[in-house]
Amino acid sequence: MQFTSEQRLDDGVFEREFTLGEIPGTLWTPESAAPAPLILMAHNNGLPKAQPRLVARARYTAARGYAVATIDAAGCGDRPRSAADEQARADLRRAMQAGEPVDEIFESFVGPLVEKAVPEWRTTLDALLTLPEIGDPVGYSGWTALGIRLAAVEPRIAAAGFFAGGYVPRAQREEARQITIPLLLLLQWDDEGNPRQRALDLFDAFGSKEKTLHANLGGHTGTPWFELEDGCRLFGRHLK
Amino acid sequence: MQFTSEQRLDDGVFEREFTLGEIPGTLWTPESAAPAPLILMAHNNGLPKAQPRLVARARYTAARGYAVATIDAAGCGDRPRSAADEQARADLRRAMQAGEPVDEIFESFVGPLVEKAVPEWRTTLDALLTLPEIGDPVGYSGWTALGIRLAAVEPRIAAAGFFAGGYVPRAQREEARQITIPLLLLLQWDDEGNPRQRALDLFDAFGSKEKTLHANLGGHTGTPWFELEDGCRLFGRHLK
Repeated sequence: MQFTSEQRLDDGVFEREFTLGEIPGTLWTPESAAPAPLILMAHNNGLPKAQPRLVARARYTAARGYAVATIDAAGCGDRPRSAADEQARADLRRAMQAGEPVDEIFESFVGPLVEKAVPEWRTTLDALLTLPEIGDPVGYSGWTALGIRLAAVEPRIAAAGFFAGGYVPRAQREEARQITIPLLLLLQWDDEGNPRQRALDLFDAFGSKEKTLHANLGGHTGTPWFELEDGCRLFGRHLK
Repeated sequence: MQFTSEQRLDDGVFEREFTLGEIPGTLWTPESAAPAPLILMAHNNGLPKAQPRLVARARYTAARGYAVATIDAAGCGDRPRSAADEQARADLRRAMQAGEPVDEIFESFVGPLVEKAVPEWRTTLDALLTLPEIGDPVGYSGWTALGIRLAAVEPRIAAAGFFAGGYVPRAQREEARQITIPLLLLLQWDDEGNPRQRALDLFDAFGSKEKTLHANLGGHTGTPWFELEDGCRLFGRHLK
């Protein structure tokens, strides 16, 4: 793990870019004497780690005492992109905007993205946990499909907050039953790109005894700011 | 308004019983120099104000800086009960336990209970707001049907937390569309006595632009303790 740049933000959070082999990542750590519990944070469907909403969530969370890390998935963000990936991404966006069925594009594009991303996140987790400023247990926040797969194979993840997209690959809809860690699912009630009933069915499917659904009015990007606080409170109950 | 007894609790909260004409009530006020914002708190379907879960919620909320008041509805708690009321309540309980349809019992019993309770709560609100230790704006917490009716007619109520029972009289299901204040609805996902889909439909019906649904696993009385915190945070955003 090599740090390639760093900056100290106004609230004392230390923001560093890193590379781990081919994987580019960002790590935010709070001003803290003790090792901070780690949150792995990912955007749905491999959106870039530099996307401003993700960065804002990460900085907010780090300022509340957590180490937060994110990486770009293969073919996403700063990583080399294939023409096929770009085409699949464009097809998915166009179909969603047109209100067409997207299940098959989703399976063929996002399914493999999740499969390829999971070992990279685990490698990153191994490396991060060697840093003295980072402690366990570990939380996860964001991309639902990746989080389900990670939580299913990675016993170090102790609690997770998911942005409950209605579209999750079939494999992860099945795997949801195996997940038993405490969960918070966020659902945007009027998210046209994500069928509400599927998100409710996904919530129902999780095997966790402690699981909470937060539904708010509005579209995909309309999650109210106080849900960031609620995410931190989930981690406060289970990681500290 | 006459105070009939008082006690100072361990956390500094002052708990007083009062009567206002025929209405018996309880008022909890925090240790505070400034007037505290008021929360009206009621149990679903006119359960007694002395019920331990209500008292625990009220004390918790008062300890966080709110004045909290509750009253017994006519025919409930400490008030004279008619044989007809007792019979209707027993019928409702028996039908719910047996999993039988309860809509008609509910309409004929809970509908009038709400209608009769609303003017008494407004009278109580008038009296409470003359006390120097109580300020406005006012919040509401608890019994969904009563809260919908109160919020529809009472402009002093600025935010509300409802325990989203699936059974709400028809009149209040209709009135939900008129409600525009910020709302938090609690839903117990496995509440056998309250159909889940009806609670989701009720959430959908509210006219509020800021409305949040919190669903947790478990039965009717299984709401996790952290939802009490969340209720206070709703009021913190809108009453302070």
